Amino acid sequence: MRQVGSVLWPKLRVLQVYGANTGVGKTIFSSLLCQAFQRHFPKVHYLKPISTGPLDEADDQHVATLGQNTRARCLYQFSEPVSPHIAARSSSKPVADANVRTAVHDELRTYATDEDGIAIVETAGGVLSPSPSGSSQADLYRPLRLPVFLVGDHQLGGIGTTISAWESLRLRGYDVQSIALFAEDRYDNHTYLKSYFAERDVHAFSIPPPPGRDADAVQDAEEMRKYYTSSSDHRAVSDFTNRFLEAHEMRLRNIQLMPSEAEQAIWHPFMQHTERSKDTIVAIDSAYDDYFQTYTTKRAAQQASSPEAPLLVPAFDGSASWWTQGLGHGNPRLALTAAHAAGRYGHVMFAGAVHEPALRLAQTLVEKTGNPRLSKVFFTDNGSAGMEVAVKMALRAAAVRNGWSAEDDIRILGLQGSYHGDTIGTMDCSEPSIYNKKVEWYTGRGQWLDFPQVKMRKGQWVVEPPATFEGALGEVEEFESLAAVFDLGNRSQHRDLYRDYLNGWLAEQARQGTKFGALIMEPILLGAGGMMFADPLFQRCLVEAVRKQESSATSARGEHEWSGMPVIFDEIFTGLYRLGRFSAASFLGVQPDIVANAKLLTGGLLPLCTTTASQSIFEAFLSKDKSDALLHGHSYTAHAVGCAVANESLGTMMKMERQGAWTTFRESWLPSSHGLSLSTSSGEVWSMWSNAFLKAISHRPNVDYVFALGSVLVIALKDPAGASYASAAGAGLRDKLFAGDSGDEAVIHSRVLGNVLYLMAAISTSRETLEAIEEKVFSALE
Amino acid sequence: MRQVGSVLWPKLRVLQVYGANTGVGKTIFSSLLCQAFQRHFPKVHYLKPISTGPLDEADDQHVATLGQNTRARCLYQFSEPVSPHIAARSSSKPVADANVRTAVHDELRTYATDEDGIAIVETAGGVLSPSPSGSSQADLYRPLRLPVFLVGDHQLGGIGTTISAWESLRLRGYDVQSIALFAEDRYDNHTYLKSYFAERDVHAFSIPPPPGRDADAVQDAEEMRKYYTSSSDHRAVSDFTNRFLEAHEMRLRNIQLMPSEAEQAIWHPFMQHTERSKDTIVAIDSAYDDYFQTYTTKRAAQQASSPEAPLLVPAFDGSASWWTQGLGHGNPRLALTAAHAAGRYGHVMFAGAVHEPALRLAQTLVEKTGNPRLSKVFFTDNGSAGMEVAVKMALRAAAVRNGWSAEDDIRILGLQGSYHGDTIGTMDCSEPSIYNKKVEWYTGRGQWLDFPQVKMRKGQWVVEPPATFEGALGEVEEFESLAAVFDLGNRSQHRDLYRDYLNGWLAEQARQGTKFGALIMEPILLGAGGMMFADPLFQRCLVEAVRKQESSATSARGEHEWSGMPVIFDEIFTGLYRLGRFSAASFLGVQPDIVANAKLLTGGLLPLCTTTASQSIFEAFLSKDKSDALLHGHSYTAHAVGCAVANESLGTMMKMERQGAWTTFRESWLPSSHGLSLSTSSGEVWSMWSNAFLKAISHRPNVDYVFALGSVLVIALKDPAGASYASAAGAGLRDKLFAGDSGDEAVIHSRVLGNVLYLMAAISTSRETLEAIEEKVFSALE
Repeated sequence: MRQVGSVLWPKLRVLQVYGANTGVGKTIFSSLLCQAFQRHFPKVHYLKPISTGPLDEADDQHVATLGQNTRARCLYQFSEPVSPHIAARSSSKPVADANVRTAVHDELRTYATDEDGIAIVETAGGVLSPSPSGSSQADLYRPLRLPVFLVGDHQLGGIGTTISAWESLRLRGYDVQSIALFAEDRYDNHTYLKSYFAERDVHAFSIPPPPGRDADAVQDAEEMRKYYTSSSDHRAVSDFTNRFLEAHEMRLRNIQLMPSEAEQAIWHPFMQHTERSKDTIVAIDSAYDDYFQTYTTKRAAQQASSPEAPLLVPAFDGSASWWTQGLGHGNPRLALTAAHAAGRYGHVMFAGAVHEPALRLAQTLVEKTGNPRLSKVFFTDNGSAGMEVAVKMALRAAAVRNGWSAEDDIRILGLQGSYHGDTIGTMDCSEPSIYNKKVEWYTGRGQWLDFPQVKMRKGQWVVEPPATFEGALGEVEEFESLAAVFDLGNRSQHRDLYRDYLNGWLAEQARQGTKFGALIMEPILLGAGGMMFADPLFQRCLVEAVRKQESSATSARGEHEWSGMPVIFDEIFTGLYRLGRFSAASFLGVQPDIVANAKLLTGGLLPLCTTTASQSIFEAFLSKDKSDALLHGHSYTAHAVGCAVANESLGTMMKMERQGAWTTFRESWLPSSHGLSLSTSSGEVWSMWSNAFLKAISHRPNVDYVFALGSVLVIALKDPAGASYASAAGAGLRDKLFAGDSGDEAVIHSRVLGNVLYLMAAISTSRETLEAIEEKVFSALE
Repeated sequence: MRQVGSVLWPKLRVLQVYGANTGVGKTIFSSLLCQAFQRHFPKVHYLKPISTGPLDEADDQHVATLGQNTRARCLYQFSEPVSPHIAARSSSKPVADANVRTAVHDELRTYATDEDGIAIVETAGGVLSPSPSGSSQADLYRPLRLPVFLVGDHQLGGIGTTISAWESLRLRGYDVQSIALFAEDRYDNHTYLKSYFAERDVHAFSIPPPPGRDADAVQDAEEMRKYYTSSSDHRAVSDFTNRFLEAHEMRLRNIQLMPSEAEQAIWHPFMQHTERSKDTIVAIDSAYDDYFQTYTTKRAAQQASSPEAPLLVPAFDGSASWWTQGLGHGNPRLALTAAHAAGRYGHVMFAGAVHEPALRLAQTLVEKTGNPRLSKVFFTDNGSAGMEVAVKMALRAAAVRNGWSAEDDIRILGLQGSYHGDTIGTMDCSEPSIYNKKVEWYTGRGQWLDFPQVKMRKGQWVVEPPATFEGALGEVEEFESLAAVFDLGNRSQHRDLYRDYLNGWLAEQARQGTKFGALIMEPILLGAGGMMFADPLFQRCLVEAVRKQESSATSARGEHEWSGMPVIFDEIFTGLYRLGRFSAASFLGVQPDIVANAKLLTGGLLPLCTTTASQSIFEAFLSKDKSDALLHGHSYTAHAVGCAVANESLGTMMKMERQGAWTTFRESWLPSSHGLSLSTSSGEVWSMWSNAFLKAISHRPNVDYVFALGSVLVIALKDPAGASYASAAGAGLRDKLFAGDSGDEAVIHSRVLGNVLYLMAAISTSRETLEAIEEKVFSALE
């Protein structure tokens, strides 16, 4: 199925008519609008995508009322006069939402010509009345995100139904151009509603109601004709048509100016602005599910001569919006959850207080990680702040137990290429790199180990040691499957090699008197440092080794207490199903004393971070002295909206796991051969990207290596100039994917880290969608 | 008007019946529920707060159908059979929402006895049908936040109206217990809706529709009686009643357990946990406008013997939820704005991209501060991260222009007692204090000046120099009004003293070779450092003095370029109307090169921070080298929901300013005497706390000094043990205010900083509300 996006052609205005309820006069207003717009355009298109009931006299009459210059079209006609979802049930073939959207899109495209024009698209029933597939009207058409004309309800009770219908449209991301209704004086809804919407800066107007039906058909038609003529002349109607035509021009202008205005007013994150111009900035008009609706000056210039080329182009959100996206853009459930928490609480201060969404989230995190060490959840607003908290926690625990003072140089132990955030304290946890070396206050405070990496090269899974590893330790291991890499119990030879190496290294550090306050590690995948897939066996051995660094001071006093040094897992990127599991630690079979989660925590909607610690870490801050406490806290700590959305997101993802939502993806990762130990269930290591696709691209001549795990796909390109963050190899592929082929095919928006291009799906992305992406990527690599 | 809160009495269940539309059978379901609950309770209360139309036969009949053990009550009866807002218009006296709520609350309280009981409260019309005052049903009753029973719409179009009504309730923070409707087979709405809500884990059920009306009244009554008997026996109904009774018990248990469960699972911000127990934790069940609905074990124990004492007590949010609250808790406009952005975008990645809410917010911030230096907006998630960015910006600009290298010890210049955030980089910007001195990686990197403070002592405004100031500089200045303190043009003597002092100090630093990368200052009010009101003249002189520290390297090359050193204003707490103005810098008459805003930015809903910088700061990062860029950025940078809510909040606050929403507050601050220079409009310095109240409490024997500005009130208490963060003086007053008097009067929730207790209103708090708070505070200080 072709991905159709939000519809916007410069010369074609489109207005979608929704009704606050059935029987509110949607068709009458549609006809009126068709007539009124004939003053502005020689031809007006009227489109009724779905119609139920036989095409009888009434319909013919209706089409006649549209005016002689209106061309009317219906795409799906069901003969039964019932709701579309019931009519479709008894129809010969089911009508999927995607089909309807594509049909509407393709029909509208035929109207998009050199000539200025307009189309009125009339929906069926009310805003949330069912579509043929059983979804709602507003959900069915949401990906097109047409400007809305809402016909209000003039009937008894219509004030409430009109406002509620408007709210339902708003929370689905629609922009409502105007609300119009009949000026029925019995209930006087129009007076109330005009004032209600005026207060909210929403345009609303009313016109006199149509005449009562006349039993005489000829007389009735004549009355209605008169009514249409007088109503389309009504000042409120012409006010609206003028406003809407201006709004269309304004919308075009706003979108077209966005890149240059952004260049003026915005300081972008992570960007050398000499490389930025209005021509590089991507304006995102809206997003739905896996796709952005994008505008770029470059594409606009290319397509300027083609009137049927849409101004907005759908682009697959290939970075999962910087690794956050979980449940699709514009997800109405998350929107409603956010709204409910906002309506129930707003933000309520969390110092010494508690509210239900925060408590429930804390309990879920402590319970579901399967880590018996964890006990207490601390909330912050983003991963960087959450890692600052983790470091403060670990350092204090280590300092208290070891009796270190402020004068001691307490360092952290980490992996090379690690990245834990942009605030200076977390930058200090990583070795000098392009990210931090020019930050005036940066001070690397650690020792960083190089580590073996998992890669697929030409169809072969390997674990490659770094160049600094020597002897047997320096040999490449080959594996028949990714599952075999994770079959840690069967890799005893390397386990011994790693152990000896790590014990030796730690002993040397101890001799030098290095004081380690924490081991900090991103389990499995090191993200911003360059998308590196660490050998899980090495990471496991490292945790085991530091925990054995015991002395009388640093030995654990209880089963779940830290020993050696506190172990922090930064699961901000890798946790909460990014790699297919709730906890990334579960791949290693060892558990941290402190874990930080963010990004997917809210399903990709809002910033929120949690730092969960063990009881023994918590107790290091207890004393009679307030200054011994963790005196950290942000104003919006544990904001209710974020916590509620996190509960909904985690709940949805856990439910997807329980219900086997990823079975199709997992199937392609079932190993073809056997011999794995029972300790690792082979089905547990899988990716949303297919195994066959991965193998295929690994053989491409310009590909160095690839890997995939969970929703992450990594393609490392060969670069004669060397692989680094400064490499331009990735950018070439990224630009190719974003340029796309031609026409109105969807393109792919992605991010690169030097020679590495990665793609990341949402947790809810379908196999069908990814297949289409895989095809495009495969072609682009040719 | 007494503040009534969310209603929850342990022995009284309350269920509020809303209709998805008019004519959906709300009254029939209410009657049914009354009958059904008679199986569980000897007496059932039926309350119809507002009824329109004459009390005729039909109503009597209806009351009869409630069952013989139901006691029915109507509070407001309008004889005209029209919508309440129209009926009330022609009624003798207007009915304010607050009156209706109080009446409902008081009526329900009479039902709260030792005996287990239940009350069914029936609303009028649909969910958003107008109340007598013209607000909606759902908005009118929201502060009570009763559990909702929503009667769905079985009529044509009823699927959509039912779901929309449910969404409108949700976004106003209601919990919907169940959705019930007639099993009308013509449209089969009930089949669709039951499945729709089941997917969302919302209980829904249907029962057979009532019989058609019989022309014979006796026969009709008999038919209905039969219907009620059979329907209240219906399994779906008894399923619901059992569920609801369990839900009530569960809700009680959950609230009662929240403090102890929080103690288990939560690590609270800024707290020494040896001082925490389940008895100190405040559970917040919901919040509305200026009030939390709170549960504490202490109050519950006190009131255990009083059945009419509610479990939840309204508490004025006296810290404005940690300085964030702007437009009231549970604000439906902000909730809908958040939902719309969630529906339109979700979160869309911001690296190299732009979307309309972020662009509009950036443009507003650049334009409305009235600071011609500002040019570019950088987004982060909270004030601490935003200040890290500000520091990175300033240090780089200073380093580039001065030719400093990584080896140089670049420091910042600040004020003593300043506080800029909890991440380690911002901690380094403040001098050693209780907050940071035990953070292992803290390194104070600055020089901090002591400064004169503005206070009211016994009715007299004074500016008190710190103890280290000598000679004329060390003399206390007295002022006839707060406006006179801000009349900087008339304070030439002190201006000269300050200038000489600061120039001398800076010259000495220059001799010592101190390299300053930035001046960082919270204009007017230093928040977390202890709520100190800095003399604006001193702050202005400081900015002017550092800007004169020119050399060939550090002199400005353009009008709006920084000179001497970059000046950062931390307006996270003080900006955006906290002190009554969009910009706190405007009080000083000097403008920063970089300003950070957060907290009120989103009106008190969500974390978001902006760091706005001048073009010359921006340009310091431009080069051909990516590593020279500001390589900073959080995943949710410029998240659409936050930006959209910020636009709505700022728009609302700016509109309030334009429309003179604070005139009543300002009036009490008009100076009684004249002689102020024209340069300062006296009306511009004012507080939401009244001048008379401030004077009155300043004379209280246990008060050291007070001040108020904008929405902030500060009360410094005398403490024989000395004034500090460790003082317990403030805690005593805080506890007294939170204990309240007795009965179900609202209490005051506040925060202290040692001997200082502060109170902070939302920007939208009414004078009436604050008067009540002022009275309680005045009494508590006795």
